[in-house]
Amino acid sequence: MAKDETQGFRLIGTRPDRPDGLDKVTGRARYGADISAPGMLHAAVVRSPHAHARIVKIDASKALALPGVKAVITRADLPTGLTGEDWNLQENTLAGEKALYDGHAVAAVAATTKLIAQDAAKLVEVTYEVLPHVTDVDAAMAAGAPVIRAGTADHSVPEGMHPNVVKYIDFGHGDVEAGFAAADLVRAQSYKTEATHQGYIEPHACMAQMGSDDRGEMWVCTQGHWYIRRMSAAVLGVDASKLRVTPSEIGGGFGGKTTIFMEPLALALSKKAGGRPVKLVMSRSEVLRATGPTASASMDVKLGMKKDGTLTAAKVMFRMQGGPYIGSSPVGEALSCALACYDVPNVMHEGYEVLANRPKAAAYRAPGSPMAAFAVESLLDEMCRELGLDPLKVRLKNAAREGTKSSYGPTYNRIGLVESLEATMAHKNLLAPLGPNQGRGVASGFWFNHGGETSVSLAIGEDGTVTVSVGTPDIGGSRASIALMTGECLGIPYEKVRVNVVETGALGVNEPTHGSRATFASGLAAVEAARQAMAEMCRRAAAEWDIDPEAVEWRDGAAHPAGPNAGKFPPMSIAEIGAKMGGSGGPISGHHEVTAGGFGASFGVHVVDVEVDPETGRTTVLRYLVVQDAGRAIHPAYVEGQYQGGAAQGIGWALNEEYVYGADGRLQNTVFLDYRIPVASDLPMIDTVIVEVPNPGHPYGVRGVGETGITPPLPALANAIHAATGARLRSLPMSPPKVLAAIKAKAGG
Amino acid sequence: MAKDETQGFRLIGTRPDRPDGLDKVTGRARYGADISAPGMLHAAVVRSPHAHARIVKIDASKALALPGVKAVITRADLPTGLTGEDWNLQENTLAGEKALYDGHAVAAVAATTKLIAQDAAKLVEVTYEVLPHVTDVDAAMAAGAPVIRAGTADHSVPEGMHPNVVKYIDFGHGDVEAGFAAADLVRAQSYKTEATHQGYIEPHACMAQMGSDDRGEMWVCTQGHWYIRRMSAAVLGVDASKLRVTPSEIGGGFGGKTTIFMEPLALALSKKAGGRPVKLVMSRSEVLRATGPTASASMDVKLGMKKDGTLTAAKVMFRMQGGPYIGSSPVGEALSCALACYDVPNVMHEGYEVLANRPKAAAYRAPGSPMAAFAVESLLDEMCRELGLDPLKVRLKNAAREGTKSSYGPTYNRIGLVESLEATMAHKNLLAPLGPNQGRGVASGFWFNHGGETSVSLAIGEDGTVTVSVGTPDIGGSRASIALMTGECLGIPYEKVRVNVVETGALGVNEPTHGSRATFASGLAAVEAARQAMAEMCRRAAAEWDIDPEAVEWRDGAAHPAGPNAGKFPPMSIAEIGAKMGGSGGPISGHHEVTAGGFGASFGVHVVDVEVDPETGRTTVLRYLVVQDAGRAIHPAYVEGQYQGGAAQGIGWALNEEYVYGADGRLQNTVFLDYRIPVASDLPMIDTVIVEVPNPGHPYGVRGVGETGITPPLPALANAIHAATGARLRSLPMSPPKVLAAIKAKAGG
Repeated sequence: MAKDETQGFRLIGTRPDRPDGLDKVTGRARYGADISAPGMLHAAVVRSPHAHARIVKIDASKALALPGVKAVITRADLPTGLTGEDWNLQENTLAGEKALYDGHAVAAVAATTKLIAQDAAKLVEVTYEVLPHVTDVDAAMAAGAPVIRAGTADHSVPEGMHPNVVKYIDFGHGDVEAGFAAADLVRAQSYKTEATHQGYIEPHACMAQMGSDDRGEMWVCTQGHWYIRRMSAAVLGVDASKLRVTPSEIGGGFGGKTTIFMEPLALALSKKAGGRPVKLVMSRSEVLRATGPTASASMDVKLGMKKDGTLTAAKVMFRMQGGPYIGSSPVGEALSCALACYDVPNVMHEGYEVLANRPKAAAYRAPGSPMAAFAVESLLDEMCRELGLDPLKVRLKNAAREGTKSSYGPTYNRIGLVESLEATMAHKNLLAPLGPNQGRGVASGFWFNHGGETSVSLAIGEDGTVTVSVGTPDIGGSRASIALMTGECLGIPYEKVRVNVVETGALGVNEPTHGSRATFASGLAAVEAARQAMAEMCRRAAAEWDIDPEAVEWRDGAAHPAGPNAGKFPPMSIAEIGAKMGGSGGPISGHHEVTAGGFGASFGVHVVDVEVDPETGRTTVLRYLVVQDAGRAIHPAYVEGQYQGGAAQGIGWALNEEYVYGADGRLQNTVFLDYRIPVASDLPMIDTVIVEVPNPGHPYGVRGVGETGITPPLPALANAIHAATGARLRSLPMSPPKVLAAIKAKAGG
Repeated sequence: MAKDETQGFRLIGTRPDRPDGLDKVTGRARYGADISAPGMLHAAVVRSPHAHARIVKIDASKALALPGVKAVITRADLPTGLTGEDWNLQENTLAGEKALYDGHAVAAVAATTKLIAQDAAKLVEVTYEVLPHVTDVDAAMAAGAPVIRAGTADHSVPEGMHPNVVKYIDFGHGDVEAGFAAADLVRAQSYKTEATHQGYIEPHACMAQMGSDDRGEMWVCTQGHWYIRRMSAAVLGVDASKLRVTPSEIGGGFGGKTTIFMEPLALALSKKAGGRPVKLVMSRSEVLRATGPTASASMDVKLGMKKDGTLTAAKVMFRMQGGPYIGSSPVGEALSCALACYDVPNVMHEGYEVLANRPKAAAYRAPGSPMAAFAVESLLDEMCRELGLDPLKVRLKNAAREGTKSSYGPTYNRIGLVESLEATMAHKNLLAPLGPNQGRGVASGFWFNHGGETSVSLAIGEDGTVTVSVGTPDIGGSRASIALMTGECLGIPYEKVRVNVVETGALGVNEPTHGSRATFASGLAAVEAARQAMAEMCRRAAAEWDIDPEAVEWRDGAAHPAGPNAGKFPPMSIAEIGAKMGGSGGPISGHHEVTAGGFGASFGVHVVDVEVDPETGRTTVLRYLVVQDAGRAIHPAYVEGQYQGGAAQGIGWALNEEYVYGADGRLQNTVFLDYRIPVASDLPMIDTVIVEVPNPGHPYGVRGVGETGITPPLPALANAIHAATGARLRSLPMSPPKVLAAIKAKAGG
């Protein structure tokens, strides 16, 4: 933004370097694999080569005989009796009776070197009885599909469904049939998306140590170390507080590092190896085969529209798999997001969760919303074209705004979809001329955002500089944004505040950096903690001046006598108060623990121009615009980075990324050469507009910006490809062969 | 103790294993030198071989030319303009114009291996102009002594003193001349003690990293990481909050690890080497030459006593050096401790601090008190013998008690000297028969104890287990004692509480583990934090039950409806509340920041039986009894350990340890083979009696137990050797040659 972004703030809206920037660009930042300890062992995991197989026998004798091997663990080393999601986590950590997907961990080895561990892993002899498998979501629901885990389904599932269907959800409002009857145009279509991986550059890595007393320490790359602590404790049957988990720097997470995949293995191996530290680092292939991609989905959408573009009714039916365990798919979120951008009088949502022989799905940036948007925003575009309406104007006409009862229940507070649509319509990219084989697509997107469990402490140093302890790992610049808010609140420079991401033994519970919550929730708590410290500093000044604490006010980083005492004493700076605090009552801190509500719903609008090569089907992104409501952009550069990153991931998902399973149920593209995430040369500079409709639930109006950006790209690209080629793709990815086939089918049809 | 030690408590007074015990006995605990990082460099320090020398030139060109050398720093790399103690710390970190003692750091080198760094250190060419030096405290005050740093003396020093005399202290009460006039016996003697080292087994070690943005991280063996942070920041001219200091496990400190000696070197080397991590580990020789032993002292004492043992007057004059900087000697503490055991109507204290060409003294267990006790308790013993009085009865007659105005000013609250003397008199060791060349000595001792700046946080986990974050490194079992107090307060098992020593970025300011304060002050704050969490848990239960929070009481680890609601709802356990806290308002924590007062003065009485070989002068300790008031022994085994450890160190100080300087001013005994600390075979099992006179300033009566135990051994052994041999030694150590000489002098005299 060229205009003044600070809007009267001293720090908020400025763009200082992030505190972790120097370390990261110089290679000094320490990531998950960068820690070692004396006597450390290295671990390797034995993984199933079968998508579905009974484990008949595990013989580790040859592995244990290899010099240097210190421990082998199997499921028999873990406690029994777990239930619910704890059982799912344990089962996913180490297979029990059956291996449930290609790459499922079956055993793990610790040895003195990584090579010995890898050799030993190959010497663990696992006898499998291979079972029939299914990986496709529709196939998994069909009669005769192999049963993955009988008895998993919950009571919501209608009778007569295949046992792989484990959950049914339905909700809505109004009367959809009446709504469709009132429409001038009713259309229904089906859509399909493949599973994609978050594609974080840093593989999962940890170093762990646990003694026979069950006291453990772990250094780990994660979005949320309290989740790692709680889940590892559950899987191993130990007290949470006995584990002390320190997060490393994180090379990307996008939701995929909010849960455990291998961390309890490192702890259990350490314990079995007499408490020696154990390092466990995944390869890229292990990351793709055995961590948590998002779900694949099969979706039906039906919309009713009047001639003027007014939506009268909407009905969606989504089927999603989340791997072999109940509760891992984002079908609930997908349904809730599907129609959240619009004020539709009659809506109906239905969804099924289905088991498949695939890895346990994890969160991936706005989980469920991109697939839902692909389906709904694609059909909306088709209908606008059919009725000859401007797709942006139709979105504006139907846009949710303050007071709208949302499609998923709550009534919206202040939101910024209308402002985002208006800013989009005014953007110069919409005036760019398009040539042959070029087309423009638009789409809107939504994410709830989140607050959640948050604990923050703040301490004044002896020189008046400030430390803030947060529990949310810094992925997208939250140390910078929290330092800006804290400095703003305390009236001190950005450089005088150091925000530290601290370990689980040092702070109350925190949810991960997920749900676009870190700057919102840890920021909110930091501001509250700063206010507590300010109040205490005013009390210290008042005591020294011997006046009433109410007669002291804090501004510009200092306590000032106020009211009748104004000017009676010189201001007392934070540095002076810090230097004296030991003698004036003790160290000064502030603390805030909260399950933060008040997060503000997030909306964005994307416009993409593409050129499709009619001879190869290859899509080139010519220009890309992201317009999104940030509430308030604390550090605009990192907000823009989130917008651009979301768009980049969405473009990859739309055009190229997919999990390719062979007929044998094995993943065929387990390296980045074959699993094609976009690289810099695949993308134009992504244009951004930060809309600021402040969130009333945050002291500075922050709304959260991490996730919405991945929501519109899937349909925006489908709509643009249609505009460029006349071919409508309803299945992802829109890779060159599929686009070429669609062009040919259209030409032939 | 054989009897029930718990006195109605559930956990307090029990003896569970310390949480860090398994790691420590199996070698898994990580000490200062046990951490490495990718790209780490190793440092070596160039040290002055002269006791006093002008630094004419430092030429590092040959060192820098050595392959693998990445940085050399000298004083020119540190900021200028520091004053006061900050200047002292900087000057001691790296010499400026002059090297002030043998071993003073002059430059430091970082290289890719430790051997290269050591080789490079030898290649740094330092041109010295050697100056005359002085190491003896009396010689340093004498006319003509070389001036170590002109202009250091503060205004307290009387005119005409040598410029090496930098501080004068005097205080007292009553009329000592009248007191002496009222006595039946007045005696005066002079005493001398040599410097001794704390003798911690683990040398100083750290790993540090600092970027060009002055953001630093340090892993360090220390008693107090906030002190390391503050002092390093001052020496380097950076903000305290920019440094993040994590304490390692600590292999002994005893006061010697409460300050910096080399830590800023590691940070400055890292910064100069482009931010690569730098590890710096001292050798034993460096520890002895260049860290902080205690002061050497020269002391005059004069006492007046009535025939019945009543003390009528006391006068002390102490001269102490603390190295080449003002403010490092414990002369003030020594004076205050000298007569603190007794209720003497007329007392006068005078003291001088003197500079010498010795390393900057640091704290050593009850700093100043052992020397003072050596002087006063030796003379008291002499006078009891002269008057034919029982030395224990004389101590009891004159003992300070509740309401006594202490020799150093304050009036005593509840104290336990009388109870300790009575318990001593009742002990079976006093009935042990003594043979030829055997003798028994007794002495009392005192330490103030301390509270100080303390920040503690406590968090309830999702499973109801508890973490406590403290800032006081665990040396003597404080994790165990704090877990016991927290568990007692919360009504949960010891095993459900994990006490974590956390880094400076995670908590408010804390003073070090010094002054016998960790269990007292961090314990007090942990109890307060637990009470806050209990109150919040009662509020959560009240909200769920929809009753008034005042009508909920906490007991047995659960919230119970009380008063009119008693029995209406089943109790809600801490585990249930923890599991639900995310949905009932957020994470539950408690916090307490305080400069803790209310610490309780500590007294002890030691009785030692020795046998002295008349042919060699070697003293064998036959039996040793420590009786000391703990206030309340939270974990009796670790209280006993402190008593035994203090006695062991005192025995070493009394009998063998000393800094031996040659005529050239160089330390001659820089390894443990020559600097003789007692080993297990030198000592009997040390008997202990824990007296418990609860300290009203602590919720469980804790008084602090770490330091007093080193106070009585020096005079107790002198008194026992006198009893065995008839020879009175007034100079330490009472090593075999000196004892033999005294026996011979007495026989000849």
